[in-house]
Amino acid sequence: MPRYRLTVEYDGMPFVGWQRQENGLAVQQVMEEAITAFSGETPGVMGAGRTDAGVHALGQVVHFDLARDFAPERVMGALNYHMRPHPVVVLTADYAAPDFHARFDATGRRYLYRILNRRAPPAVDRDRVWHVPQPLDAAEMHRAAQFLVGKYDFTTFRAVGCQAESPVKTLDRLSVTRQDNEVRIEAAARSFLHHQVRSMAGTLKLVGQGKWQPGDVKAALEARDRQALGMNAPPYGLYLVEVAYAN
Amino acid sequence: MPRYRLTVEYDGMPFVGWQRQENGLAVQQVMEEAITAFSGETPGVMGAGRTDAGVHALGQVVHFDLARDFAPERVMGALNYHMRPHPVVVLTADYAAPDFHARFDATGRRYLYRILNRRAPPAVDRDRVWHVPQPLDAAEMHRAAQFLVGKYDFTTFRAVGCQAESPVKTLDRLSVTRQDNEVRIEAAARSFLHHQVRSMAGTLKLVGQGKWQPGDVKAALEARDRQALGMNAPPYGLYLVEVAYAN
Repeated sequence: MPRYRLTVEYDGMPFVGWQRQENGLAVQQVMEEAITAFSGETPGVMGAGRTDAGVHALGQVVHFDLARDFAPERVMGALNYHMRPHPVVVLTADYAAPDFHARFDATGRRYLYRILNRRAPPAVDRDRVWHVPQPLDAAEMHRAAQFLVGKYDFTTFRAVGCQAESPVKTLDRLSVTRQDNEVRIEAAARSFLHHQVRSMAGTLKLVGQGKWQPGDVKAALEARDRQALGMNAPPYGLYLVEVAYAN
Repeated sequence: MPRYRLTVEYDGMPFVGWQRQENGLAVQQVMEEAITAFSGETPGVMGAGRTDAGVHALGQVVHFDLARDFAPERVMGALNYHMRPHPVVVLTADYAAPDFHARFDATGRRYLYRILNRRAPPAVDRDRVWHVPQPLDAAEMHRAAQFLVGKYDFTTFRAVGCQAESPVKTLDRLSVTRQDNEVRIEAAARSFLHHQVRSMAGTLKLVGQGKWQPGDVKAALEARDRQALGMNAPPYGLYLVEVAYAN
C-alpha cells in the first residue's frame, strides 16, 4: 500500500479552506474526489497546513495512501486532469515512507503576506493582495516585527477557536520588505497558531501607518490577550509558501 | 474644457479588448460609462495601446476631455468607484495639455510576456501566464531574440488584419530572462504591429524548446511572410507595462 507525498498549489478564493466543511467546497474535497475519479479508491488526504477560506498555497504538502500502486508521475497527471477546472494543481508527486505524515513531520512552515500599498485598488492582482491605500513605512514595520521573533506566548495573535495545545510558539523569522508598491511580510516557524500570521500582518500594518509604534507591538505580545490585538489582516493576502521536512 | 491623462491597470480576461466592439464589453466602454455616471458627460476615451481580448495592462495611458472642470484627484476617485466591480482601475490622473494625445504622442511602449515554465498548470496565476510544460532554454531564447532587435520589416510577426501603414518598425529591446519557473520576455519599441509581441513570444518559445534554432528566427524575419511565423502566443500572458512620452 504505497503512501504518496504531493506538493500542491491553489487559489484559496473559491474554497471554504483546506479542510472539508459542511458549508461549501474545500480543497481537500477537490483532491479526494479527483483521487477517487482516477483510482476508484477513497483515501483521506492529510495536509500540512489547514489554510482558511481565501488563503492561497504555493507549496502545501499532503499525503495519502492508495491500495493499488500507481507511479507518482501518473498520480500527478491524473489529479491535474480530474481537478480541473478548480484552481488546484499538483506541482510534485513522490512515494513517501509508510510512516510519513505531512502535518506532524513538518519541521518548518513559511508564509508570505502581500500588501498592495498604493491608492488604487488591485485589478490584475484582485483577490491576491490586501489593498492598503495609506502609505506604509516598511522599515518601521520590519523593526516592530523583530519584537515577535523568538519563543513567546502568542495568545494575543491567536484566533479564539485555535485548537493548538499551547499558545507558545517559536517564530524564527518575520521580515518586512518593500518591492515597488508591494509590502511583503515573510514569516517562518516550525508551526503557527490559527490566524497568527494574519494577526501579525494586521498589527504591523498599524505600525506602517504610524498608528502604532514598534513598542506597542511588544506591549501587545506581552499582554497575552486577544483584546490587545491591533487587527486581523484579511485572508486573501496570505500564501502558504513552503513546508519543510527533516528528510 | 480640461483634458485629462490617466494611467490605467486592467485584467484583460473579461473583456473583448481595449476598443469598443459589437460582440462584448470593452475596457474603453467601462471607462466611458463610468465617466458618464459621475459627470453626466459622454466623452470618447482614447487609449495609447489597443490591447486585444485577454491582454492585460499595468500602465495603459488614456486621454479624454470634460466640459466641466473636476480636479484630477476627484476624477480618479469617481472612476474607481463607478468602474467597480470590473477589474479596471485608474492608477494616476492629471491634467494634460489641450493637444496631448495618448496614442499619437507616445514615444515608447513596453510590454511583458510571462511564460509559466513547469509541468503543472497555473492555479494562482491562471489567466495571467502562458503555461508551457516543456523545459525552455531562456538563454537560447534571448540569443535568438537579438536577431529581432533593430529596424526591420516585421511582416512575419504581423497579424493579417493589422492596420499599420508600414510593416517596418524599430524594436529597441527584446530580452528573455528566467526567474525560477517563469520565463519573462520584455519588449520595448516606439510602437508595435498588431500581434507583434505575441508572435515574437510564440516564436521564441519554439527556440526555447529546441524546435527552432536562433538562426531560424532570423530566417523567419527575412522571409517577410506571415506563413514563416513559428506560432502566435496566447493573449493572457501579455501585459502592456508602460507608455512613455517626451514630456
